[in-house]
Amino acid sequence: MKNEFCYNAKALDEMERVKRLKLINSISGVKSANLIGTKSKKGISNLCIISSVTHIGSNPPLLGFICRPTNKVKRDTFDNILENPYFTINSVEQSKIKNAHLTSAKYDKEISEFDECGFQEHYIDNFPIPFVLESRVKIGLELKQKVKLINGTYFIIGRIKLLNIPNNELHETMGGSVGVIGLNTYYSIKKMSEFDYARLKKVKNKTK
Amino acid sequence: MKNEFCYNAKALDEMERVKRLKLINSISGVKSANLIGTKSKKGISNLCIISSVTHIGSNPPLLGFICRPTNKVKRDTFDNILENPYFTINSVEQSKIKNAHLTSAKYDKEISEFDECGFQEHYIDNFPIPFVLESRVKIGLELKQKVKLINGTYFIIGRIKLLNIPNNELHETMGGSVGVIGLNTYYSIKKMSEFDYARLKKVKNKTK
Repeated sequence: MKNEFCYNAKALDEMERVKRLKLINSISGVKSANLIGTKSKKGISNLCIISSVTHIGSNPPLLGFICRPTNKVKRDTFDNILENPYFTINSVEQSKIKNAHLTSAKYDKEISEFDECGFQEHYIDNFPIPFVLESRVKIGLELKQKVKLINGTYFIIGRIKLLNIPNNELHETMGGSVGVIGLNTYYSIKKMSEFDYARLKKVKNKTK
Repeated sequence: MKNEFCYNAKALDEMERVKRLKLINSISGVKSANLIGTKSKKGISNLCIISSVTHIGSNPPLLGFICRPTNKVKRDTFDNILENPYFTINSVEQSKIKNAHLTSAKYDKEISEFDECGFQEHYIDNFPIPFVLESRVKIGLELKQKVKLINGTYFIIGRIKLLNIPNNELHETMGGSVGVIGLNTYYSIKKMSEFDYARLKKVKNKTK
C-alpha cells in the first residue's frame, strides 16, 4: 500500500524518544479520560488525569489503572494510595477538559490540584477521599491489588465501594464521555451503532 | 442533586447480575475497540474484539489487555497465546464494526473468526500471527508478562515487534478510531482540543 509505514522492533528501539512516546501512546486508539482523586496521610488531596482506567470485572465490581511511580504527578497518586488505600475515579466533562489537562502538570506535594486546577472537592457519605463535584460519574474504590509490571509501572486495582451517577440512563450519561488519544488530544464521542450481544445463531443469519 | 443515583457496596452486591454487568462495564467511559489475532499450535487462527487495550510504556513499547479465560471466546485467545506467545492488535474501522462485533460470539475452536466474520488474514514479514488486512493500524506483539488478577482474569502484556500504520499523520490515522462503551455500543470520535504538555509555569499563567 502506498505511503504505508512499517516499523520493526529495531526501528522502534532506535526511534527518537519523543516521537516514539507519541506514536506508542496513540496507536491503541481512543481511551477515556478520568480524574483520580487521592489523599495523603497528612490530609493533602491530589488529582491526576489518567487515560488507562480499565474494566476488570463486574462481580465483584473492579476497575484498574496504570500508575508510573517515576513520574512526579503519578508518584503522588501512587504514594497516597499506599498511605491511604482508597481513591476516587471521576469523569472528565467536556466543559472541564482544560482544567483536567492541567492536573498533569507537576505541582508541589503540599498543594491540592483540586484548588489549583479549578475543581471542587465533594464528599459523599463517609468515603474518605474527595470526589470531583463537577464530574457526572463519581466512583469510590478501595485498593485491592497492586501489581508491578515488567517496566516498573504498577497496575492498581480497586473494588468499587460507592458509585454516583446523575441518572439511570447510562447511554445519556456516558454519551458525554471525553476520550483521549496520546497524551494531549481530547475527543468527544458520537454513537454509531448498538448491537445485540453476538450469539452464534444470530451471527450465522447475519453473515449469510 | 435531583434524580441522582448513588449505590453503595451493598447495593452493588445485591444488584441483578445483568444490570450490574452493563453498569460497571460502562462507567469508566469510552474505550478503544481492537481485534486481537492469535493462532493455535494446530494453526487455527482466532480473532476476538477487545476493549481493554492499554498503553503500558513506550520504551520498551508495551501494550496490555485483560483476558477472561472463563469466557469461551477469550479462552481461545488465552490458550493460543500460551501455546504460541505472539498476538496482533488490529484497529476496528468504522465500516467494519458489525463484523468486528460478531467476533464476540462463540465459535467452534476449529473455526477461524477471520473467515466467519468477514476479515482477511494478512501476514507481514515473518511475523507468525496474521494481521487483519482491513485494519489501518496493525500491531504485532510478543508475550512478555501474564499476571493473574484477583478475580481470576489475566492481564496480558506484549512487547511491540512490528507496527504498521497507513501514514505518519497520527491524528489523521487515529481520528478514525472506533470507541466502545459497555459491551455493544460503538462510537465515532471528534477532536475537541489539543493542549500543550502541561507545565507548572504555563498552568499558572492559564489559571490566573
